[in-house]
Amino acid sequence: MSMQDTTATDVDRIVTRAARASEQWKRTAIAERARVLVAVADALDAHADELIPVAQRETHLAEPRLRGELRRTSFQLRMFAEMLPEGLWLDARIDHADAEWPMGAPRPDLRRQLEPIGPTLVFAASNFPFAFSVAGGDTASALAAGNAVVLKAHHGHPDLSAATTSVVVDALAAAGAPDSLFQTIYGTEAGVQALQAPAIKAAGFTGSVRGGRALFDIANARPEPIPFYGELGSTNPAFVTRRAAEQDAAGIARDFVASVTGSAGQLCTKPGVLFVPSDSSVLAELEAQELPAAAPLLNGGIENGFRESLASARAVDGVRTVVTGADGEAPVPVLLATTAETLRAQMDTLMSEIFGPAALVVTYQDESELVEIAARLEGQLTATVIGRDDDEIAPELIAALSERAGRVLWNQWPTGVSVTWAQQHGGPYPATTAVGSTSVGMAAITRFLRPVAYQNVPESLLPDALKEANPLRIVRRVDGVVVLP
Amino acid sequence: MSMQDTTATDVDRIVTRAARASEQWKRTAIAERARVLVAVADALDAHADELIPVAQRETHLAEPRLRGELRRTSFQLRMFAEMLPEGLWLDARIDHADAEWPMGAPRPDLRRQLEPIGPTLVFAASNFPFAFSVAGGDTASALAAGNAVVLKAHHGHPDLSAATTSVVVDALAAAGAPDSLFQTIYGTEAGVQALQAPAIKAAGFTGSVRGGRALFDIANARPEPIPFYGELGSTNPAFVTRRAAEQDAAGIARDFVASVTGSAGQLCTKPGVLFVPSDSSVLAELEAQELPAAAPLLNGGIENGFRESLASARAVDGVRTVVTGADGEAPVPVLLATTAETLRAQMDTLMSEIFGPAALVVTYQDESELVEIAARLEGQLTATVIGRDDDEIAPELIAALSERAGRVLWNQWPTGVSVTWAQQHGGPYPATTAVGSTSVGMAAITRFLRPVAYQNVPESLLPDALKEANPLRIVRRVDGVVVLP
Repeated sequence: MSMQDTTATDVDRIVTRAARASEQWKRTAIAERARVLVAVADALDAHADELIPVAQRETHLAEPRLRGELRRTSFQLRMFAEMLPEGLWLDARIDHADAEWPMGAPRPDLRRQLEPIGPTLVFAASNFPFAFSVAGGDTASALAAGNAVVLKAHHGHPDLSAATTSVVVDALAAAGAPDSLFQTIYGTEAGVQALQAPAIKAAGFTGSVRGGRALFDIANARPEPIPFYGELGSTNPAFVTRRAAEQDAAGIARDFVASVTGSAGQLCTKPGVLFVPSDSSVLAELEAQELPAAAPLLNGGIENGFRESLASARAVDGVRTVVTGADGEAPVPVLLATTAETLRAQMDTLMSEIFGPAALVVTYQDESELVEIAARLEGQLTATVIGRDDDEIAPELIAALSERAGRVLWNQWPTGVSVTWAQQHGGPYPATTAVGSTSVGMAAITRFLRPVAYQNVPESLLPDALKEANPLRIVRRVDGVVVLP
Repeated sequence: MSMQDTTATDVDRIVTRAARASEQWKRTAIAERARVLVAVADALDAHADELIPVAQRETHLAEPRLRGELRRTSFQLRMFAEMLPEGLWLDARIDHADAEWPMGAPRPDLRRQLEPIGPTLVFAASNFPFAFSVAGGDTASALAAGNAVVLKAHHGHPDLSAATTSVVVDALAAAGAPDSLFQTIYGTEAGVQALQAPAIKAAGFTGSVRGGRALFDIANARPEPIPFYGELGSTNPAFVTRRAAEQDAAGIARDFVASVTGSAGQLCTKPGVLFVPSDSSVLAELEAQELPAAAPLLNGGIENGFRESLASARAVDGVRTVVTGADGEAPVPVLLATTAETLRAQMDTLMSEIFGPAALVVTYQDESELVEIAARLEGQLTATVIGRDDDEIAPELIAALSERAGRVLWNQWPTGVSVTWAQQHGGPYPATTAVGSTSVGMAAITRFLRPVAYQNVPESLLPDALKEANPLRIVRRVDGVVVLP
């Protein structure tokens, strides 16, 4: 099976159908929406044995990793389904009329909630063929929020996209969801056309800075601009304090290499730069590590990108190779090294993401250099400190990193992004184009919602979440006070 | 006193100082921030008698309106101050480590809160010299959120901007706030320069579509794009159902005229288009209304804009004048009328905002036309229905309007935007450039915050809001459950 690009006429039809489906889905009871999400999750799990081999063939990722990713994908749908009935995500607020409101004018009855933003376009990623693709994070949160989804498949895994789409579409139909609630399109031009379609009200994207920025610009240049949630790239620096390096240089080296080379380094949160004390033995321990052998990356484009960005880093005076994996035709895993001085002089080149199995080790003289470098970082998805709780530098370093990263880690490695209530996957640009949002975890639902207030609207005409009687039994803020149901 | 444009050198210095102040303010205890906001509010009230005459001279707005606006401005600061300690706005989430997490991999300890976004640039509005200007809504919410503010004064009231700035700056100093926490700049070029400064991390704006879109584009074209919260324009349509018109045509006509002509029609939420049944007596009642006499608008630019957009509407075939105020040199209040048929053929022209004392009355044949027109509306700050609870059209009409407006009103008029927990002042473009946010009410704080998660960080290094012991005693979500302190 091989997918052809979706024609312009078909994109038009698909977007029109998405608008109709979004209307119906928005009016579908929240409990019903939850049931439908679970049905999709069950279907994905049930079809794992069909989907996994297709994914292996198209992405070269290992079976256990893909099985874990699919489990994560269905888990995510179920977790959203579980969250929906509690309703704090609706941010429901009720202010009763108050003639004595101290503003100086009477307060009218005002009630506000978050409502579905409308048909959402999701651009699938190359590196997570399940979790950030057809039925992945943005799809799950957009559907949970009450929106129809148009999914732009990634060209790197077209057969898997078609197969997963078919599982999702069948499950939605069987569960009684509105027709065309979820539809997939193929081809770059089709994606751009959909992004420009007036009926599309939001977009999510995971990919490169170049591609993502171009789409971000298109979304903003629309007559009616729409929110564009793009995750574009991150170097995910990790900082090893002096005492941590003294304590366990071997363990740090081993865990860092595992984090860099897992999934052939093709993770958004791969720690791409490691800072170690120049007089520690971490660098020597890294030299002694055995890196995995050369292995094919996700696709040819990514292999080329890897070779190019690696060559740029290697071309910098003062950058040397520490250790490589066994040679082969496919890209070879590699660790480079340089000094903090060289890095500071070449921040733009050396702090650029190398997507694939490579990382740069940077030796520093003094821990104060770490804070200085942290303050100059571009936006990051993650920043990691390997330290000891009583390290003098720790408070200042964590504070500086929290300014530049969406997630700050202590003595753990950034790969492995758990789906939880408190997860944050996003950060200042270019980590994401929307610094206020996350693409992973339960807070991700917010990106596909918009607030609407109702003034003086009678009970019978109010949305359920705002009715005086609280028929949905959700958490609300009433006259300023948080009220549990 | 007349203000000169801020020089490029001074803008640089001001932004640099703002960055430093923002750092300090962010680390200032929340209770302390609240105390400082109250001090600013008190100072504004204490200086009312100095500020009001300057505002009258520069804006031509009436004294009672200006006194009410100043009261609203100080009230807003106090309300944010009151909200800060409760802490739900921090959206604090704590997920404890869980080895059995059903995702298939252990869950690490993850804690997430919203943190200040960084130095914020606020563009003051012409039409609210207090409430959307120097110490207005965006300034209040940006400061409350923990950010330094650079305020671009509106050229329409430079002396008032300088006088208010001086009150705010003195109050901040007396209250012990960080130096340069709030600074004002003057001039269009200075505003653009500040918007492009790397240290500025967010911007708020209230004004015209033309100016606002240009600034929105500049914010998005930055190497690091930043959120731009622009309120650009809204026609605020009001829909009178057949039975409501029968019941109280005179009252509707009277209240509509009051809402259109208050503050000489220079309110963002002025109902600019009124839909009435063609066979009702509302139009006749409107013809019998006495409109206010001609009066100067805020400034010459706004008078020109008013005359131009009024002329465009009048030039449409089938648009006639219903009633005008007494003639004079200043712009004359006026009501125009046309049919729903003409409107539908000329939506772009006739649904454009006429900023000033004018509105268009549209006669319809059948209530179903209202739903059809509602679905074709551009984004609106407000949409109003004057109806009866059991009007058959009501549910469908309200649903359609909630798609296109940020606030939907029932039997009240949209002017008069109360500052409350549940207020929503925003809507789809062009009402705002950021459909997910509000510029009025307590939810406005969110626009100047960004999420940060901490993974596996020890208690001593965590921000207070995320410490296990909950020293701030705030509402949090712990392992998925909302916990009151």
